Amino acid sequence: MERAMGVLGERSSVVVLREVFVGVRRFDDIHRHSGVSRQVLSNRLAMLVDEGLLTKVAYQAAGSRPRHEYRLTPKGLDLYPVLTALAQWGARWYSDPDGPAVQMVHRDCEAPVEASLQCAAGHRDLPVREVVPRPGPGALPLS
Amino acid sequence: MERAMGVLGERSSVVVLREVFVGVRRFDDIHRHSGVSRQVLSNRLAMLVDEGLLTKVAYQAAGSRPRHEYRLTPKGLDLYPVLTALAQWGARWYSDPDGPAVQMVHRDCEAPVEASLQCAAGHRDLPVREVVPRPGPGALPLS
Repeated sequence: MERAMGVLGERSSVVVLREVFVGVRRFDDIHRHSGVSRQVLSNRLAMLVDEGLLTKVAYQAAGSRPRHEYRLTPKGLDLYPVLTALAQWGARWYSDPDGPAVQMVHRDCEAPVEASLQCAAGHRDLPVREVVPRPGPGALPLS
Repeated sequence: MERAMGVLGERSSVVVLREVFVGVRRFDDIHRHSGVSRQVLSNRLAMLVDEGLLTKVAYQAAGSRPRHEYRLTPKGLDLYPVLTALAQWGARWYSDPDGPAVQMVHRDCEAPVEASLQCAAGHRDLPVREVVPRPGPGALPLS
């Protein structure tokens, strides 16, 4: 989890990822849409490519100069549950008067999607009060 | 989601929250266990209290001076799906040779808990490829 937090532990990284998730994939578009400065955006995109969350893909539309866009890798796509859970927490506790900026939906039926907690023994949609963290094998001792 | 990211958008905030989640609740213990400097920790705890994620509670053990500990509020507890999803992403993509530092379990049966994606129409445990983000009513126009 330490490395995971290192990658996501700056607000601008999550902002950039969110843009790519909603389909804003070109440098200039991400810059305009997110408000992240060009310098910071350039650094963040390079870090997200280095970490294997995004890949930079060249493409060429008819009659125009070559362009690049950023696409999610499988590792980046695997952040859906994290971003979904964060979006629903934000919607619950910081309700925006305009409504949420992003809504995750099921591709097949367009119904809203939420992240919820499932136990391996088959108990579904656990309330948070029924979930407890245990130190795992990699936990630091509390000295 | 903007405010939500503002609160969580610094690595040290998530580190501090994780300590409180696993039951490390006193300033000195969080400082020692997390490695976050006293100054940064003091600022983060104040911010997390201001934002309503933690509450500072005085208690007194027999024969000792009064102490304080930090406890999760309902708003803080509601971050379980976010931290669970982040922990499982980290475990999958940055496998620590020692194993995960934290394992979320179901209080009743001790089975491991995961965050997964559910659609409101009843389709369960969606693969990430079946989930798509849609701009919500609060989305900024892509000008």
